[in-house]
Amino acid sequence: MSGNGRGHDDRTDRFADDPAFAVHEGGKLSVVPTRRIESIADLSLTYTPGVARVSSAIAAEPELARRFTWASRVVAVVSDGTAVLGLGNIGPKAALPVMEGKACLFAEFAGLDAVPIVLSTTDVDAIVETVVAIAPSFGGINLEDISAPRCFEIEARLRERLSIPVMHDDQHGTAIVVLAALRNAARVTGRTPGDLRVVVSGAGAAGVACTKILLEAGVGELVVADSRGVLHAGRSDLTASKQWLVEHTNQSGHAGTMADALAGADVYLGLSGGTVPESAISDMADDSIVFSLANPIPEVDPTMAARHAAVVATGRSDLPNQINNVLAFPGVFRGAIDAGATSITEEMKLAAAGAIADVVGDDLRPDYIVPSPLDRRVATAVAEAVAACAREQHVTV
Amino acid sequence: MSGNGRGHDDRTDRFADDPAFAVHEGGKLSVVPTRRIESIADLSLTYTPGVARVSSAIAAEPELARRFTWASRVVAVVSDGTAVLGLGNIGPKAALPVMEGKACLFAEFAGLDAVPIVLSTTDVDAIVETVVAIAPSFGGINLEDISAPRCFEIEARLRERLSIPVMHDDQHGTAIVVLAALRNAARVTGRTPGDLRVVVSGAGAAGVACTKILLEAGVGELVVADSRGVLHAGRSDLTASKQWLVEHTNQSGHAGTMADALAGADVYLGLSGGTVPESAISDMADDSIVFSLANPIPEVDPTMAARHAAVVATGRSDLPNQINNVLAFPGVFRGAIDAGATSITEEMKLAAAGAIADVVGDDLRPDYIVPSPLDRRVATAVAEAVAACAREQHVTV
Repeated sequence: MSGNGRGHDDRTDRFADDPAFAVHEGGKLSVVPTRRIESIADLSLTYTPGVARVSSAIAAEPELARRFTWASRVVAVVSDGTAVLGLGNIGPKAALPVMEGKACLFAEFAGLDAVPIVLSTTDVDAIVETVVAIAPSFGGINLEDISAPRCFEIEARLRERLSIPVMHDDQHGTAIVVLAALRNAARVTGRTPGDLRVVVSGAGAAGVACTKILLEAGVGELVVADSRGVLHAGRSDLTASKQWLVEHTNQSGHAGTMADALAGADVYLGLSGGTVPESAISDMADDSIVFSLANPIPEVDPTMAARHAAVVATGRSDLPNQINNVLAFPGVFRGAIDAGATSITEEMKLAAAGAIADVVGDDLRPDYIVPSPLDRRVATAVAEAVAACAREQHVTV
Repeated sequence: MSGNGRGHDDRTDRFADDPAFAVHEGGKLSVVPTRRIESIADLSLTYTPGVARVSSAIAAEPELARRFTWASRVVAVVSDGTAVLGLGNIGPKAALPVMEGKACLFAEFAGLDAVPIVLSTTDVDAIVETVVAIAPSFGGINLEDISAPRCFEIEARLRERLSIPVMHDDQHGTAIVVLAALRNAARVTGRTPGDLRVVVSGAGAAGVACTKILLEAGVGELVVADSRGVLHAGRSDLTASKQWLVEHTNQSGHAGTMADALAGADVYLGLSGGTVPESAISDMADDSIVFSLANPIPEVDPTMAARHAAVVATGRSDLPNQINNVLAFPGVFRGAIDAGATSITEEMKLAAAGAIADVVGDDLRPDYIVPSPLDRRVATAVAEAVAACAREQHVTV
């Protein structure tokens, strides 16, 4: 019984020089029984005939499944591999290491079990039906790396069909952490969210979700741009989600380029890739805030940004103020699952953002607006805030 | 962060007296990362940006997924909950403890990772499409507790659509162990399979599969009975799978009851429940063999059977000669996965049965025709035999 692909010869192995491949050798997860089977008695309790008594009890009282199966604490990390990191549509098998990594983070930061489910279909109906079909196996569904605008419809339909937490992390995980960071960036520069004029670059999954949560959080003014410029009512090339953005943002009627919109703006939120010229950043308001989240190459060079902005955040782990979804999703699912939440509401996301921002507390500085991704306090704080919110809202089983 | 339903008060907990419930508290499985994430460097290798290099490599060379993801060693244990143990159609949530138990056995006996997938649909098309959709996440599909005749079509269609091992264990796991036991029962009574006239009681999933494998193994004569009596060409109430049985068994043209057919027969194979009268067993041939596998109450009372038969086997763990699928499925999947098999062929099943029978070796006695379910040699022997067979047949990636 060998297997797992281990035992390669380092002298001839073309992957030997990159430690990322060593970490991935044989995969990054294992399923482990919580109890060993060492006797006939163990076998008779874990499996037949003992298991039949447990199954019968659940058949008679379905709510006992929450106590006597693992489903309520297992999150499915579901992807069709169409929008993986910066790599795009690379398919399910190539997406799997990312989903395994996500499952590792669920375990490490929230003590949750997570199972990667990568799909051989990219059809919206098929994805919805597949996730609904497997849903009794799980306590939550984390949608991941599914391309826009399909991700919006898939998430909305699954939220409608299922009574367990469903969240597309590329949208809401990002949005929660961005809001947490922006709250603290406003505070450290002596402003409130209502004072801020924000330009969002990118109208994909993260752009839409960030815009929504910033509106909910009371940001003063929002303009969203895609690769063709600012979204406004005169544009004839808008998808349904961009149409929604037009109706809810850009009240001043900007109609030019993203750089035009940045003149005098307080916040740049980059979620798109590409490059922003220094002149556009220097034309922003005093004490400007630059969140440039494209990875691995931020849209705004961080060194350049630091010459003009009061606060700079990126997605990079080697710079201060890393905007990393891992600050949100483990605690959000943990809190929702602990409370028996039947969905993840907007209020629960706002509560999560508040909890992340609050962990920074009195240590707030321009280069410390969000906690480190490794800060073990965060998931606990987020879980408690989310669970409390779920209970207050009575969206629990 | 509490959860898992632990912390009940034993004084008031109505489940406190049954140890099976204690074993199931919080579920029986956990997903564990193979490496901890304790530093930013760990995070950068397990997740972004390091994971992107692994995903890119797999996108360019899909076969690298076998080495750098966990999928190739993960078995999905898939059930719609329609035919669970002796409990029948109890639905997916109530079936889950059984599937978790199965996953525990995969881990314990074969070192394989297994994930229970219980389904909210019982529609054949929907089940097939769901399993095909999630298949890139897994290295094998163990179908479990799906009612006949749906199980036949579901398995056949999945074998056609997928290039990973697919096996309905209620059919083939049972059939493999029955064949192993019957080979040894014949040997210990001085006969060969070709000498045996066998009466199979039950034409469901296990009955069909046992009949097929016994025919392949060269059993002399076979008669199959369902609840209405012996299957023969004059019956007008036959499903497609029973029609197949009629065409391949009962060459002497029996047309009466199961008890009629037992007169002079060498082997009774009970897979159906119900009760067989002592007169029917006493009318069997000398040195008869009684396999009475209904659980927890065998069709033939074992004490009564012992008065007439030379060899008695049951499904019960408290009696000798326990026919338990755990002797087959862990090693079958381990061997198929180790060899990179693209399917589980009839020859691989025969090889598995041979390996199980051979573990008994020179210790063969009438009350020791199959190894104990806890015998750690079995899964290794089965895996080696199955892998060798797969390589010989060139059904590998």
